[in-house]
Amino acid sequence: MAILLHELVGSDPQRPFSPHCWKVRLALRHKGLDFRTVPVPFTGVASIEGGSGIVPVLRDGETVVSDSFAIAEYLETAYPDAPSLFGGEGGRHLSRFVESWSQRTIHPFVSTSRALVSIHDSLAAPDRVYFRQSREKVFGKPLEAVIVGDEERLAEFGKKLNPLRSLLERQAFLGGDVPLFADYIVFGAFQWLRVVTPWQVLASDDPIADWFERCLDLHGGEGRQVPAAA
Amino acid sequence: MAILLHELVGSDPQRPFSPHCWKVRLALRHKGLDFRTVPVPFTGVASIEGGSGIVPVLRDGETVVSDSFAIAEYLETAYPDAPSLFGGEGGRHLSRFVESWSQRTIHPFVSTSRALVSIHDSLAAPDRVYFRQSREKVFGKPLEAVIVGDEERLAEFGKKLNPLRSLLERQAFLGGDVPLFADYIVFGAFQWLRVVTPWQVLASDDPIADWFERCLDLHGGEGRQVPAAA
Repeated sequence: MAILLHELVGSDPQRPFSPHCWKVRLALRHKGLDFRTVPVPFTGVASIEGGSGIVPVLRDGETVVSDSFAIAEYLETAYPDAPSLFGGEGGRHLSRFVESWSQRTIHPFVSTSRALVSIHDSLAAPDRVYFRQSREKVFGKPLEAVIVGDEERLAEFGKKLNPLRSLLERQAFLGGDVPLFADYIVFGAFQWLRVVTPWQVLASDDPIADWFERCLDLHGGEGRQVPAAA
Repeated sequence: MAILLHELVGSDPQRPFSPHCWKVRLALRHKGLDFRTVPVPFTGVASIEGGSGIVPVLRDGETVVSDSFAIAEYLETAYPDAPSLFGGEGGRHLSRFVESWSQRTIHPFVSTSRALVSIHDSLAAPDRVYFRQSREKVFGKPLEAVIVGDEERLAEFGKKLNPLRSLLERQAFLGGDVPLFADYIVFGAFQWLRVVTPWQVLASDDPIADWFERCLDLHGGEGRQVPAAA
């Protein structure tokens, strides 16, 4: 039975946008594994595979794993002969630092930018209600108020990317000459943006933009299968 | 012949302060290697071992290596049976991201804080002249003007540490249960502060402070051999 990847979508099941789901898509391709995706709307997340409450969820035969990092760890253990996602135990642990950095540097910017409203607008009607209510409860204001000033905040966001930029000036991937799961962690965040909004947050001559294009080319262009938002 | 570590000092040869030298000290202990240190003042750096122009410089028999990361890589290759500094090739590459993050997050704050003047004041007279001239050329203003407002900048600096803080809430070291060179990279930056100034930049209940204490305890308390600045 093929591996199943439950991943988040809006009204168009062909446009998965969750950064965490994209991490897993690339991880599966990295391991050379075939999989089928199961599109899930926000209001369907709670009932995936008996109720993990989060996406992505992977089913591989009798095994069900949720959380992108846990899935990567599962794949590394279950398919040890395929190319490594971590390059050893040190890489596995330090990938957690990359995850922590990405989620505290890129995610807070994306989720308070115009991408927030774009995601809302891309959802089916019942999901829009859920999304607006849950997010507005967290932010304490309307989505449209959250995203105000994203253009002005872009310059500061760009500076926060300097640790990544500086690294990618010197090496092709976070993993060195070849990509590792750490690359997919950061890729997921930029792919999230690419799928939901045409807004270009990286200058075309930014080393991060070059790296992102390299990531889009990986594994038969897996990331390009979903066209950029227009 | 014992391994020699050329490391930067001020007027007191017993108080090495360079973050990069501290990374190497802990890396040497991690590998279980004995070494002798050679204290070098700023104005002596250019002539170490024929002129690398930087510290630290390691001499191991006929081999001379400069740059802390290159030294760690050398030690990993030359002493493969001792505990690993990287935990595999993935860990080696991702340690570069930790280095890039540390040098673009912690170093810019330290080097524009009161630590800058403390370092100056700790130097012997000829080094003070060199240090002031070279740094003021970079900053375009007097050292005393560079450090203005460090107390006010501390809150923002603290927020920039969130990716590290969040990680250390969940695991003992960047390397997981055991430290890796990635830990020593970040340790070096905080040890630099500890040796040059009594200023406490971390709250005592900060997970980063707990981790730093754990690092000070490592390898027979190598980091504690130099008392904190008073």
